[in-house]
Formats: sequence, C-alpha cells, structure tokens
Amino acid sequence: MSSAGPGGLPDFPFSLEAIDGRARVGRLETPHGTVITPCFMPVGTKGTVKGMLPAGLKSLGAQIILANTYHLALRPGSDVVRDLGGLHRFMGWEGPILTDSGGFQVFSLLDTADVQDEGVAFRSVYDGSRHLFTPERAIAEQQALGADFIMCFDQCPPATEDRSLVERAVQRTTDWARRCREAHLAAEGRGTGGLQMLLGIVQGGTFADLRRRSAEALLEIGFPGYAVGGLSVGEDRELMLQSTESTVNLLPRERVRYFMGIGDPVGILDMIALGVDLFDCVLPTRVARMGTAFTKEGRLNLRNARFAVDPDPLEDDCDCTACQFFSRGAIRHFVGQKEMLGAQLLTEHNLRHLFRLVDGARAAIREGRFEEYRGSVSAGW
Amino acid sequence: MSSAGPGGLPDFPFSLEAIDGRARVGRLETPHGTVITPCFMPVGTKGTVKGMLPAGLKSLGAQIILANTYHLALRPGSDVVRDLGGLHRFMGWEGPILTDSGGFQVFSLLDTADVQDEGVAFRSVYDGSRHLFTPERAIAEQQALGADFIMCFDQCPPATEDRSLVERAVQRTTDWARRCREAHLAAEGRGTGGLQMLLGIVQGGTFADLRRRSAEALLEIGFPGYAVGGLSVGEDRELMLQSTESTVNLLPRERVRYFMGIGDPVGILDMIALGVDLFDCVLPTRVARMGTAFTKEGRLNLRNARFAVDPDPLEDDCDCTACQFFSRGAIRHFVGQKEMLGAQLLTEHNLRHLFRLVDGARAAIREGRFEEYRGSVSAGW
Repeated sequence: MSSAGPGGLPDFPFSLEAIDGRARVGRLETPHGTVITPCFMPVGTKGTVKGMLPAGLKSLGAQIILANTYHLALRPGSDVVRDLGGLHRFMGWEGPILTDSGGFQVFSLLDTADVQDEGVAFRSVYDGSRHLFTPERAIAEQQALGADFIMCFDQCPPATEDRSLVERAVQRTTDWARRCREAHLAAEGRGTGGLQMLLGIVQGGTFADLRRRSAEALLEIGFPGYAVGGLSVGEDRELMLQSTESTVNLLPRERVRYFMGIGDPVGILDMIALGVDLFDCVLPTRVARMGTAFTKEGRLNLRNARFAVDPDPLEDDCDCTACQFFSRGAIRHFVGQKEMLGAQLLTEHNLRHLFRLVDGARAAIREGRFEEYRGSVSAGW
Repeated sequence: MSSAGPGGLPDFPFSLEAIDGRARVGRLETPHGTVITPCFMPVGTKGTVKGMLPAGLKSLGAQIILANTYHLALRPGSDVVRDLGGLHRFMGWEGPILTDSGGFQVFSLLDTADVQDEGVAFRSVYDGSRHLFTPERAIAEQQALGADFIMCFDQCPPATEDRSLVERAVQRTTDWARRCREAHLAAEGRGTGGLQMLLGIVQGGTFADLRRRSAEALLEIGFPGYAVGGLSVGEDRELMLQSTESTVNLLPRERVRYFMGIGDPVGILDMIALGVDLFDCVLPTRVARMGTAFTKEGRLNLRNARFAVDPDPLEDDCDCTACQFFSRGAIRHFVGQKEMLGAQLLTEHNLRHLFRLVDGARAAIREGRFEEYRGSVSAGW
C-alpha cells in the first residue's frame, strides 16, 4: 500500500491513467481506499461536513474528505480524537481523510497571531486561551488525529501582500517544511490510523519567482506530493490561475498535486485544465446553508420570492435527494424557516453537482475531449 | 382502498390482527400504504422531521408522519403547499401523513386566542397578523394540504382547568366536530391528495363524566376513527392514564384510536396497554436536539463531561447510524459544537429506539406476552 518515497516519507501509490493536454486522470491508493483524481474533497471542518451523514456523502460520490487540525486540536483536542479511536472512527468515515496543518486558520481566524521562526503564538477562537503552533506541534496534532494525508505547517500571507513579507513567508515555510518532514520521520511516518502521507505546500503569493523558489526548495527536501497554497484568498482570478500554472509546471508529473481552496464549478474546471488532481473548499456547503444552489444555469438563491410556488426541482437531470423528491418551492420554505432540511438538501445538491461535474471531467479526459467538455459545461455560467 | 364509513365519511380499512389483554395489533390501509399499529408517528411540524431526510425516516421504520396545520397554513400557506403538488410532494414523503387541525397551537402558542362559538381569533406567531380559525377553515386548510388523515378542530383547555370551562370546551368541540364533518362531506371527503379520513377528538380534561359526554356525542355524529385529546399537557401521569383508560373503554373496538402527544418510552407502553393504536410527540426529536439520547438504561445527556472520551456507542445493540458508526465522545463533541450532525445522529437514534420498542410490543402482543415485555423493558428506566 505504501513505500518510502521522496525524503524517506511514506508514499501512497499514485499512477496516471489518462492525460489530455495538461489535464490528467490519476489513481491514488490510500490505506482507506482508492481515490480517482481529479477529485473534489468536501470539507468537514470540525469533523463533520455540515448537514451530511457519512453514508450520504459516500453515496453522493465523495471519495475523500477534509478535517481541520486547528479546530480539532482545540475542540475536542487531538488527544481526545486519538483516544476515541482516531479521526476515521470519530467522523464515522471509513474512506480516506486529509487534515490541513492549521496554518491557514492560525493566520486568518483572529488577528492576534504572532509569527516567529519557532512557530505561531495565537489565541484560541473558542476561549481566548494562548497556544503555540510549531511545525513539530502541527505534525504531532495531525499524527494524533490520524488522517491518511497530512500537511506541512506553512505561513500563509495574503497572496498580494508586500513582496518582502511574502519572501520571508516562503523562507519560513521552507524551514518549517524541513522540520515537519523530520518530525514525521521521527514517528516513522505514522499516526493513530497508520502510515500518513505528508504533503509540502508551495507558497509565494502571486510572485512567480517566489513560487519558483518555494517549489524548488520543497522539491529538494522531497515530498511524496505537493500542494499549492496561499492562493484563492481574494486576489484576481487571472492572477491566481497564472500563479497556479507557473507553480504546477515546476512540480513533478508523477506526484499528486493539490490546490488548496477552490470550490466553484468554473474554478474547478480551470484547475483540472492546469493539471491539478485534488482540490477542496467550503464554498459549496457554505453557500448551501445560506440558501444557494449550484446549477448548470448558474447559482440559484432559493430565498428569492420567485421560487415560492415553483414546482420544479433544482435541476432537471440531477439524482440527489433534493432534485428527486423536492420542489424549489418546498426547499425555499425550509430555507426560509431555517429548518435543517433546507441546508441538508442544498448541501447534498451542491456536492452532487460538483461530483457530477468532476465525473464528467474525468470521462472527458479519458476520451481526449476535456477542453470541449470544459467549454460546453462552462457556457451556462 | 376506502368506503363510506360512519357519518358517511371516508373510511380506510382497519383490521385487528392480534389482541393481548387490551393491547392490540392492527392493520390500517391508507391510500399511501399500510400502517401496522401500535405505531409511533414522528412529528414534522413545518413539513420536516427536523434533521431527518425522508429516506432516513423510512429506513428507520417510520410508517406515517405528522405535519402541523397551524404552521403550514401560516408558512408557506396551505394553498402554496397545494399548488406545489400537495403535502406528500412538499415533504418528499410517499407514505401516509396525518395533519392535526391547528386547534392545539391556536390555544397554546400565543396567549391571545379569543374563542367564540364561531371559531378562534388569534395572532400569528410569525408576524402578528390576525387570523380566524373556524372548523370550516381548519378542514379547508387540511384539504388543501392533502394529508391522508385529518383532525377535527377542537378546543383544548388545560386538562385540569376549571370544570365549567372544560364543560364548555366539550360542548364546543362537539359542535365543531359536527361542522367539521359537514365541511368535509361537502368536499366529498377529498383533499389535494385524494380521500382523507377525518378523526374526531374526545375532550373533557380529567373529568370522567365529561370525557364520557364528549365521546358519546362524537360517536353519535359518527367518525371512522377517534383521538384522545387534551391530555399529556402537564397533568399528573396517573390521572392522564385513568382518563385515557375511561375514554378508550367508550370507543368502538373496531375503530382506530389515537392518543395525541405521548413520546416517552414508558408512556408509549402504557398507551399500548390501554389499547391505543397511534401516538405522536415531538419529545424524542426535541430532546435529541438538546443532546439527549433514549437508551434502555434511561436518558443520557451527551453534554455531560463524563462522555468526553467514552468510545462506546449510545446503545450496544442499536442499528442506527449513531450507534453503528459513532462513539459517545464524538457525538458529545458534535452536540457541544452545535454541529447539525449531533442533532441528526441523536434524532435518528431516539426515533429508532422508539420504533424498536414498538416493534417489540407488536411482536409481544402477537405472542400473548405483552405484559411480560412491558415489564422487562420498563425495568431499566
């Protein structure tokens, strides 16, 4: 199932099954099952994809889900999750799981983070208590949680931040990546659930030379897979795609590539076109809880009065619970009344919409017609 | 599927399959499927059993669910539900549905109800707007909604209220029952979804002679089934059981009997012992959302710190999602973090717990050992 890969780190087999332009279909074998890429990963921040039962996620087509180290380390505590049998048991999810390192949250959740070379001192959003996250602690927390994929602790400045600040963040992210690798090797690459594959995160904002510097440094350390971090945080979309493209072009073809934080249909197709294999975002599930549905004709805001007596499903050809059994009018009622069912139905629908979108992308890549597919699908938005 | 029954009203076939003491197993054939009684009916106040998808309800063992006329008539409006295809389509539930008349809510939700012989004037809890519910309007609303079972509009005073007030409520409930029957006959017993079976509601508080007067008056009008209303509203439990017993003894053996508003395990077994066939309550689902689980050893409050690192399921032998896949510690985390999953899991568990309890009661009745079953199951509480 795994062997020592780059940097001596555990490496789960990843093979390319089809290539079309830069877009690719891959097969990633994890200790908890196979992931066929490209793959959208739903986010279960606090150990649950809000509104979804695990069996529902699986039947929708979810292959791998995310959880958040920052949140779980503070509540209920990674040691508690470990003592309860590890993250898979905790989440009731038998498939693969990826945890982020907490890096993004310590910088973004409260404006009180104090960054030093040693790590980041910050206050908990839960109770204001003081914490120090270091690369070593981020790895230890993720080992206790026991996901299949874990992430290096990185410094994530705003993408268009002052160059000198981004440059310093790249240097720190490199140093921390080295320390993360060492910390993981010291535990023989294992966490509560068994072997864990540690991914490096390329930073550098939208500065092409800093992206290159970050990528080359990580490649020299050696990781079994790489993520593109620090983008999709408010910068111009074109700039984001350019930065992603230049980064991906530096990454080895045979290694899995993960873009952190994209979940809109057009953005997902853009990422697939650039050769990205994995992506995640809270977007589809968050907007669902606000009453918004993804459709081929664009987003529908179910709070709109025009849906009050609309007997149609959200989408004609969708096979999710919402579209099979409920009218737009009924969903609007549940959303308006803040009934859990509204959030449940829209969450399921939005995830199913994205899974079908990516299913279609994989099929198109295999048939050598990805650009045609991308064009036809994007036309509606 | 149905023929004209007592009072000329639509009557769905009901047959007794087994009797043990006063407890009984019955079969009720509705236009949307068979209900085997005794049967606990989950409550979907605003058109959804909070936290449950319809498919989940069905797989747990729900046979028939309730919805609330007061709430649906005000939001989104019964005409809207009708225009969206009726209540079954609206709720995404293909099985039988029962709507209450709104009587209980107009008296209990805001202390501004003005009761006259004509009907009840009240202010909406949603926007303070003025409404007049009459027997005719209650029936019209329920016809528009289109449930399989609908209820007479009744006056529901506190069970231990002053005798003269309860006596007046019995008289009014009788008059209103007559008007409800006439209103339903005028529509040929039909609503949006087809034929509807109208049940009479016996009132009379805890006064045995008033219960008798109410029951005899309703029997004279003639209904295809009868409910015991106005109990389980704060009075002493012994008094409630005595009043139920004296009421049920007056009802025809061959007609379905519905006790309105009981959902605790002991109370359900008590009702079955008295020969009640149907019962409903928000209790199991409401306490679930507050973090409480029904178990054979009594209720567990998952907010209690002693469950923080408890790796066990809620119940060892339960086959619900919570017990199959989640530890008590994990459920406690989700409840504490107000994640929907906590409410979803506990709702599913509590309903499954009750369905299993009633399944066991039916089996025991068929085998002539209901009292033994009741004793053995109740021992834990």
